[in-house]
Amino acid sequence: MANEKGATCGLEWRLTVEGGSSSELLPESGLLYRVWLGIFGLILGLKLKVWKFFENAWRVGVDDPRRVIHCFKVGISLTVVSLFYYVRPLYDGVGGTAMWAVMTVVVIYEYTVGATVYKALNRGIATLLAGCLAVGVHSLANHSGDKAEPIVVGFSVFLLASVATFSRFIPSVKTQFDYGAMIFILTFSLVTVSGYRVDKLVDMAHQRFSTIAIGSSLCLLVSMLVFPVWAGDDLHLVITRNMEKLANSLDGCVAEYFNNSGSNEEPCQKSLGYICVLNSKAAEESLANFARWEPAHGHFGFRYPWQQYLKIGTTMRYCACCVEALNASFNSEIKVPECMKKYLSNACMRLTSHSTNVLKELAESTKAMRKSSNTVILIEEMNSAIEDLHNALKSLPHQVMQPPPPSPIEATEKKKLLLLEVMPLVTAASLLIEIASRIEEIVDEVDELAGLVDFRPAMDKKPNQNQPTNKTHPEDQGQQDAMQTLQRI
Amino acid sequence: MANEKGATCGLEWRLTVEGGSSSELLPESGLLYRVWLGIFGLILGLKLKVWKFFENAWRVGVDDPRRVIHCFKVGISLTVVSLFYYVRPLYDGVGGTAMWAVMTVVVIYEYTVGATVYKALNRGIATLLAGCLAVGVHSLANHSGDKAEPIVVGFSVFLLASVATFSRFIPSVKTQFDYGAMIFILTFSLVTVSGYRVDKLVDMAHQRFSTIAIGSSLCLLVSMLVFPVWAGDDLHLVITRNMEKLANSLDGCVAEYFNNSGSNEEPCQKSLGYICVLNSKAAEESLANFARWEPAHGHFGFRYPWQQYLKIGTTMRYCACCVEALNASFNSEIKVPECMKKYLSNACMRLTSHSTNVLKELAESTKAMRKSSNTVILIEEMNSAIEDLHNALKSLPHQVMQPPPPSPIEATEKKKLLLLEVMPLVTAASLLIEIASRIEEIVDEVDELAGLVDFRPAMDKKPNQNQPTNKTHPEDQGQQDAMQTLQRI
Repeated sequence: MANEKGATCGLEWRLTVEGGSSSELLPESGLLYRVWLGIFGLILGLKLKVWKFFENAWRVGVDDPRRVIHCFKVGISLTVVSLFYYVRPLYDGVGGTAMWAVMTVVVIYEYTVGATVYKALNRGIATLLAGCLAVGVHSLANHSGDKAEPIVVGFSVFLLASVATFSRFIPSVKTQFDYGAMIFILTFSLVTVSGYRVDKLVDMAHQRFSTIAIGSSLCLLVSMLVFPVWAGDDLHLVITRNMEKLANSLDGCVAEYFNNSGSNEEPCQKSLGYICVLNSKAAEESLANFARWEPAHGHFGFRYPWQQYLKIGTTMRYCACCVEALNASFNSEIKVPECMKKYLSNACMRLTSHSTNVLKELAESTKAMRKSSNTVILIEEMNSAIEDLHNALKSLPHQVMQPPPPSPIEATEKKKLLLLEVMPLVTAASLLIEIASRIEEIVDEVDELAGLVDFRPAMDKKPNQNQPTNKTHPEDQGQQDAMQTLQRI
Repeated sequence: MANEKGATCGLEWRLTVEGGSSSELLPESGLLYRVWLGIFGLILGLKLKVWKFFENAWRVGVDDPRRVIHCFKVGISLTVVSLFYYVRPLYDGVGGTAMWAVMTVVVIYEYTVGATVYKALNRGIATLLAGCLAVGVHSLANHSGDKAEPIVVGFSVFLLASVATFSRFIPSVKTQFDYGAMIFILTFSLVTVSGYRVDKLVDMAHQRFSTIAIGSSLCLLVSMLVFPVWAGDDLHLVITRNMEKLANSLDGCVAEYFNNSGSNEEPCQKSLGYICVLNSKAAEESLANFARWEPAHGHFGFRYPWQQYLKIGTTMRYCACCVEALNASFNSEIKVPECMKKYLSNACMRLTSHSTNVLKELAESTKAMRKSSNTVILIEEMNSAIEDLHNALKSLPHQVMQPPPPSPIEATEKKKLLLLEVMPLVTAASLLIEIASRIEEIVDEVDELAGLVDFRPAMDKKPNQNQPTNKTHPEDQGQQDAMQTLQRI
């Protein structure tokens, strides 16, 4: 708003000058005014930017208050580790290398427990390995004479740094030990090279390792015990939420198309949820990657099959692809005649509703980690809805192609036009059927997960209220209306 | 292979025992044999794993030899920086804190120039900022008395660490200053907390900064001057390659469907290229993110609009979504009658060929950063191919629905069946049209890029050889054949 105001001001000023009756009279004050306006605009623009930044920051905190807690956790951990400096006995105990503990806390502390464990273990093991190796290289260098020593050390640094750097490109290393490889190079170079100067090499390696251990254990304790954020929980949530988003967006865009309720903004936002599903690959992979470093917690035991979540995610993305294509066919330039739309609308909406029911049931049962007794029935209903749509499509040409012909030529013309006009609708129907079959693939992947981790047995519960069994009557009515309309053409 | 051998061995042994004539005679040697086989299998399995790992590593190097060069670059930089330790005058010059230079090289050195610059600048600026702030806090703490000093220091660490950690969640900070925020916390904590012990605080801050500067400049020089890997170049390449992949996969899957050449494996692999396009979002974003830190190089000037590449990438992914749906409709369970397929095959393949021509031309002109004189013509041809497909679809019901009827009932039955049978084909045609319109969106985005960075003017060159202008004749022949077949039904 401030920006707009500035722009308006600038425009007004220019208009005044272009008006030009007093342009000779006010050259200097015009320039001053211009400069003043420029500065004013700049300040307002800056204010707006700062304001937007803080608004963004506020939203980040409100969207997920765990982030705010995480920040306090980091602050407290750092302050605690600083105690090693404040309290003299502790400071003397670790021999002045408490710096490493501070550094470890800053570098290791990540948002999720999994990421913290990943970094802590990688850092610990890599430091240990590199330390041992460096001590070995150092003693080798010691025995090879004063002149050869820097050469041996230099060559070993060159060789190991190159090899470790290369290993970071190998996918299996990259996903699990990328940080470890970096710390390996770091520790090895530091210890080997310092070894050339510092005599008490083993002491130094030992101190470095013990301070890192202190920092790491503090991080791990705080991250696991104080309001822990588990990557596994988040992955579980992302997957089930994506199921719901997929269901809602499918529901939304089909309803929007067939009901033509373009006035309401809300369903439009809702029906774009599939884009989140399409874009969540990277987030899912990183969460799954960290989740496997987490100890057993909640429902998730040791060696929980997190990779299966990625498979579910992939099938969902394929499904979302079809929703995207469906959206495109709904927005096609070819205008489908209203009567046609009305004719197929029931079958399409029934199939959509059954498909989303399956997805919602799936989301619910996955969320509760419970087998669902309804899924089989819901899938059967979905399949019968596919059959209904097939039948509606079968009878479509019969209805469309045989209007009472006033003259043979006109009738032929009408037929030609109609199939092209109905193309987006046929495409949409075909994509809805494809989406249903892809939903079955999601069901299969979830079933595999249920088998792998022993979902709890199903509870007896009443069928989903969204089920349109009670809606059949009015829908049939609609179909009859549509057929009557078609016959009237 | 070794694993297979092991498995066979195990199987053979079990068969021998199950044969059972000498089972009483060899219980102990059987057990020993079993243990031996187990160990043998384990060793073979391990050997296989190691072999596979090295095979993977070899492929990583062969796929992109720049990675191997990068490793040598890191090795050499580290060895050079170690000189600060080896050579005494240099060592004395930086007062024993050469360690920071080694650490900087290890931590900052990334594969692409952009990532290295990003880390170096973030590290440098964050260190400077945090150092100044820490000195300020230290002097404030000094003036507040002996008892209050640790409290002031502790509280400032807590406050700044929390705020900086929170800032890392804000998207705009995360993409550009994530590393800087971490280094800020690190330096601030280290300097503030050490300030409590080390008296020569300013000296320490100065040394830390100068060693970091030495390490950073070395990294930047080596990464920019010795076989540089520019993130911008890579992004440019990824985008143009994805255009080619999209074109090839579209070509491949349409040709595979209509030509029914299932025997050849190669096109199958080729036609899956669109999956790469679907999955390249994260890579593109990270490259674009680093590319903007790079100085002007090659064709890419300062403030090059890398964000536009992301927009092109997004339109390509939407196009790839439709190719995925197209693939699904080709693999539909509903068997489209051969004659129908043949009838629409020409129009579909013509449209595909024109669409891929546009994509290939686009890839070529983007690669050369040159305006293309052909694009307009190719798009016109694509649009006329869309018209042709529309016409073919218009005449389809006319052809299909009016076979010479032997009896009225049978004719009606035939009609009903045919529309459902032809549904996947109609869907495919509709998706091909949608793909063409999405390709036009890609063209628009590339045009915008061309306008933003002033692509060089077009060269006069002969039209793309892939253009099917000369193929019209045999295709028309095919269409005639198909129509004759249809009339014969």
